[in-house]
Amino acid sequence: MPRLYHLPLSPFCRKIRLVLAEKRIEVELIEERPWEKRLDFLRLNPAGKVPVLITANGQALSESAAIFEYLEETVPEPPLLPADPVQRAEVRRLVGWFDDKFNREVTENLLFERVTKRLAKLGYPDGACLKAGSQNIRVHLDYATFLLEGHNWLAGPRLTIADLAAAAHLSCLDYVGDVPWDDYPAVRDWYSVMKSRPCFRSLLADHLPGFPATDHYADLDF
Amino acid sequence: MPRLYHLPLSPFCRKIRLVLAEKRIEVELIEERPWEKRLDFLRLNPAGKVPVLITANGQALSESAAIFEYLEETVPEPPLLPADPVQRAEVRRLVGWFDDKFNREVTENLLFERVTKRLAKLGYPDGACLKAGSQNIRVHLDYATFLLEGHNWLAGPRLTIADLAAAAHLSCLDYVGDVPWDDYPAVRDWYSVMKSRPCFRSLLADHLPGFPATDHYADLDF
Repeated sequence: MPRLYHLPLSPFCRKIRLVLAEKRIEVELIEERPWEKRLDFLRLNPAGKVPVLITANGQALSESAAIFEYLEETVPEPPLLPADPVQRAEVRRLVGWFDDKFNREVTENLLFERVTKRLAKLGYPDGACLKAGSQNIRVHLDYATFLLEGHNWLAGPRLTIADLAAAAHLSCLDYVGDVPWDDYPAVRDWYSVMKSRPCFRSLLADHLPGFPATDHYADLDF
Repeated sequence: MPRLYHLPLSPFCRKIRLVLAEKRIEVELIEERPWEKRLDFLRLNPAGKVPVLITANGQALSESAAIFEYLEETVPEPPLLPADPVQRAEVRRLVGWFDDKFNREVTENLLFERVTKRLAKLGYPDGACLKAGSQNIRVHLDYATFLLEGHNWLAGPRLTIADLAAAAHLSCLDYVGDVPWDDYPAVRDWYSVMKSRPCFRSLLADHLPGFPATDHYADLDF
């Protein structure tokens, strides 16, 4: 069985967990705290980052974009990219939007400050970062609202890896209560549908000792 | 003819220019200064980043990873990814290494501080960033040396997008004289071969007003 080295509240790990679950690939989850710089883990991924996927053949794959493309190439059903090259580029652009821009402007400001710093004993959250993250998430939720106009999924009529990438980030922030859902009903409706998918079950069962999830985190009718 | 909105010293733009040239796709280069937040440009890419490729059909594509995959899918020759899925994952891992880890640890510390800040009138370079970048580049050049042991290219026996991504970053830093080549002969030899490829010609002809390139920048026998 493949193994995934991961952290429960890493959006990049969650994206891959969602991909694996959508493609019905069973996986053994192994929690890894990258800041501990465990030598055996650095041998698997010298970049020292999660996720790392160990395939059934024992190959260690890292970088979530590379792992996703590998899974899409080797287990094509159900497809998480459209068939048309221009539409594929649009879906990958949106993945870049969430994994780079949203990550820098929102996730790192909120999640790194609130959770990772405490876990890795790096000090207290920086108030300026928390404020910037809380302001920036609104711009991104506006953009997601715009993307959802006229269709059910972020990149059009079908679920794609763009939805999984966005839901991975938002689910981490939702765990700590940082998503102002009430002001963005279209995004909330989309996320509610995402949460109800079987692929989301394992994420909703995550529990981080010392960091209780918000009340509505695992609630499908939030 | 396709058009590419770019910045001469952006490694992400240079990577795409190298891909286009390897695949012998002629392109019109249009310089765009993203920090000016030109409205017509933001309509092409709401993330406000270069590169943006306008295809011959008028489609605007952004995010360099998405643009690369589009070009690889639509103009397969010469291939810049291997055929085997595990090897493809390894090449994409290395692209992630340079475009994420190297970029954060080296390129942003040196190039952003020295060049972008002055162009965008954001103040003086931060000495702590310059120092961190100069130290970090050595770790990465060690890693590149390790990758080059026993073969000619970073990911094995053939040129791949990993070489183009790495060369794109290093060529920008070489323009401003920030690469300690003498201490890393294997990497210098690899870069010397890269520089001699026809795809590199347009990069070596780049000239940024107010920022003269180092003497050896365009020299093939440096």
